[in-house]
Amino acid sequence: MKIEHLISQIKKKKSFLCVGLDTDLDKVPQHLLSEDDPIFSFNKAIIDATCEYCVAYKPNIAFYEAYGLNGWKSLERTMDYLNVEHPDIFTIADAKRGDIGNTSFRYAKAFFETLNFDSITVAPYMGRDSVEPFLEFKDKHTILLALTSNKGAFDFQTLDVEGKQLYKSVLRTSQGYKNAENLMYVIGATKASFLKEVREIVPESFLLVPGVGAQGGNLQEVCKYGMAKNIGLLVNSSRGILYASQGEDFAEKAGLKAKTIQEEMEVELDRLT
Amino acid sequence: MKIEHLISQIKKKKSFLCVGLDTDLDKVPQHLLSEDDPIFSFNKAIIDATCEYCVAYKPNIAFYEAYGLNGWKSLERTMDYLNVEHPDIFTIADAKRGDIGNTSFRYAKAFFETLNFDSITVAPYMGRDSVEPFLEFKDKHTILLALTSNKGAFDFQTLDVEGKQLYKSVLRTSQGYKNAENLMYVIGATKASFLKEVREIVPESFLLVPGVGAQGGNLQEVCKYGMAKNIGLLVNSSRGILYASQGEDFAEKAGLKAKTIQEEMEVELDRLT
Repeated sequence: MKIEHLISQIKKKKSFLCVGLDTDLDKVPQHLLSEDDPIFSFNKAIIDATCEYCVAYKPNIAFYEAYGLNGWKSLERTMDYLNVEHPDIFTIADAKRGDIGNTSFRYAKAFFETLNFDSITVAPYMGRDSVEPFLEFKDKHTILLALTSNKGAFDFQTLDVEGKQLYKSVLRTSQGYKNAENLMYVIGATKASFLKEVREIVPESFLLVPGVGAQGGNLQEVCKYGMAKNIGLLVNSSRGILYASQGEDFAEKAGLKAKTIQEEMEVELDRLT
Repeated sequence: MKIEHLISQIKKKKSFLCVGLDTDLDKVPQHLLSEDDPIFSFNKAIIDATCEYCVAYKPNIAFYEAYGLNGWKSLERTMDYLNVEHPDIFTIADAKRGDIGNTSFRYAKAFFETLNFDSITVAPYMGRDSVEPFLEFKDKHTILLALTSNKGAFDFQTLDVEGKQLYKSVLRTSQGYKNAENLMYVIGATKASFLKEVREIVPESFLLVPGVGAQGGNLQEVCKYGMAKNIGLLVNSSRGILYASQGEDFAEKAGLKAKTIQEEMEVELDRLT
């Protein structure tokens, strides 16, 4: 997907919500477990109930890998469903991959071609030749981990590296990679003030922001410090939507929750214009 | 596998060779391509020809993921074959995973339980709570990326962080994680002198060393600087063995190549005693 198309979808739907499809069979409503492919059944119901209110879906690949071959089948079916029924919705493989060049290229093919995702999250630790193979794909996007929303983020990401924090070095250095226009960044929302410093380095890049809601971030703060001229934000919610109810009304409740977030986002977008 | 068992296997076979199963259908001999599962057929032939000379196998997961569901089936069959026929051989999922706690735990389950690998490579960028879920598994090993063998390693891993290079900070900090005795480290062999500095921080940890041979490292140098009292080394070779020949004699040639490396290793091990 071209970035302009993502931006036009955000404006049309008045939403920059990304729904994280972290589907966990331990939390899926009981009545789905007797179905052939309960993960896909759950995802389909969630998608049908929330697609009006969001512009992106983000399956975290770990949740599918954990179920082996069956998990991969559910992921393929979910992606087929999204690609056929909702081609206007941006898809993110939350895979946090990264390897030496030749191998990163294979991951890129797996997610961008075999599964036809629009984007993938990638870890920066191995540097340029682990990231550039992803950047080669036209109209596909590489979302580099910069500052994550977990506690462990402070182990290395915020260490002082030659006068600046490591995550800033990741932002700056990666902007020099070939095809850097295909880069987006993961920036956790645990301290929204970080976003201000991020915007000094990458004023227009899209940021994928996890950690709003469940992990303590605040949408208004994120928008205040993080919104760019082209909006430049995708804010993710996973558990808060998926498991809004664990009863038979799970999809309806998920839809209501997504709608509530969309409405808050609409207020923020109106401020921009 | 208990670490003591790995060490006893190294002593018995006089080898610390790890064979990287980076199986690429573009490089597999033509005559295998007509088989039902050419990846597994190739792997089985390579394993049968090299198992006498090595103590570990390391499939790089990207090569399997690139082929979608069929790739996962080939990986499962390969692991079943290794677990049943060669339970004394250490297995490494070269997956370079890492995510927030709950999600890392799912990756750990996928590789340690569903696929029954003895170990997995993990990226350190997200810190403690992305690594510790892997360390919880008894007799399973987490091989943290510290210093990789690619050019991009110098983008971030060797940056000066508060007076020391980032990869040393990764070594030191991770030694404070819970169950750190289950940690091993990836240390590229592009500059063997790095290994000396690594041994000052982790004198006894097992190191997985890629980049000997194809990527320019030298076995004698690696042993001089990297060998510990308990040996503490697994040296990987992938392409040099797998594609020693692309003809019908590929397995025989792979076996000969593995034997040559084993004999060089035997010389190094004899020096130790």
